[in-house]
Amino acid sequence: MAGQRGEYAKSARRREEILDAAFTVFSRSGFTGATVSEIAREVGMSQPGLLHHFDSKLAMLEAVFERRDQSALDILSGRRDIEFLRGLVEISRRNHEKRDLIRLYTVIAAEATAPDHPAHAHFQRRFHRVLGGTQAAFEEAQRLGLLKEGVDPRAAALSSIAVTEGLQLMWLSGFDEIDMAKGAQIHMQQFLTVPL
Amino acid sequence: MAGQRGEYAKSARRREEILDAAFTVFSRSGFTGATVSEIAREVGMSQPGLLHHFDSKLAMLEAVFERRDQSALDILSGRRDIEFLRGLVEISRRNHEKRDLIRLYTVIAAEATAPDHPAHAHFQRRFHRVLGGTQAAFEEAQRLGLLKEGVDPRAAALSSIAVTEGLQLMWLSGFDEIDMAKGAQIHMQQFLTVPL
Repeated sequence: MAGQRGEYAKSARRREEILDAAFTVFSRSGFTGATVSEIAREVGMSQPGLLHHFDSKLAMLEAVFERRDQSALDILSGRRDIEFLRGLVEISRRNHEKRDLIRLYTVIAAEATAPDHPAHAHFQRRFHRVLGGTQAAFEEAQRLGLLKEGVDPRAAALSSIAVTEGLQLMWLSGFDEIDMAKGAQIHMQQFLTVPL
Repeated sequence: MAGQRGEYAKSARRREEILDAAFTVFSRSGFTGATVSEIAREVGMSQPGLLHHFDSKLAMLEAVFERRDQSALDILSGRRDIEFLRGLVEISRRNHEKRDLIRLYTVIAAEATAPDHPAHAHFQRRFHRVLGGTQAAFEEAQRLGLLKEGVDPRAAALSSIAVTEGLQLMWLSGFDEIDMAKGAQIHMQQFLTVPL
């Protein structure tokens, strides 16, 4: 059993190293430009050795973003209504420290708008999840009487995610004045009857 | 003189054909992946013949987007304050008909967030211009008493452009329910004391 646990830990560590290498290569070459052999070289493994852990370039890309999303899910875990919206602001705050990751996300999300892009479904699912969670939080706020009269939870969620995405793009384009957390907070505040 | 005018018209037509070909190639291969020779092949010209009209791949990219921006500038021409903001809504409405162009813009704007990307300065200038124009419109609205108390024209402009960019990304990602013009209108309405 101890041996099995040791093997498991070693494999998990290997996966992390592969994802770090994949992140580096995707950032350098984009998703379309990157190759499995380039990632294998970066992590110092053979291509078959690497494919034992992840069976495709797409699987590696999804795992890179799932690792990012996991830290966001940790922040949102157990939160509801206003607390969930505060969690979104907190995530935007932490994104200021992750410029390279946000840039990779921005580039590949744009690439993946092409319906035939291998990661198209992944990004569509991701937007559905993020939008669904945010809409549910606005609906809970509405039931608690914390939403202003006439605000549609779906429309509020859509514009809140949109403003976050757009501020990221402009921040990355060189507008260092942009405070993404403050921008998200001010935007969502307009829909609420209590301070966010 | 008639001969010169004829030459001029022919050259202008040639430029349009080159930009159509550049648009096709950039959409297919991205900016980094596209080559001048691929664009020359697409339009049926020699590479030196093409470089007589545009001296680089970047010059062609900028001209493709300037052609797009010209139609936006035509809409905004002579408009001020609230009328300028209504013009922005009108531009978003027309973007619904230009999916391929908006997708190319989205992909290359994301690519160009890298500070060493050849089009980085172009996109930064473009955002400065768009933001500056929008901020000026909110300032004019403020002087006319049409802006709600406490609204900062710069912050209103930033979030208005951000929401437009973000809604475009989600629309392209497969959220067909998104009405970008309505989204922009509702967003800017919150800052104003009169109907937009």
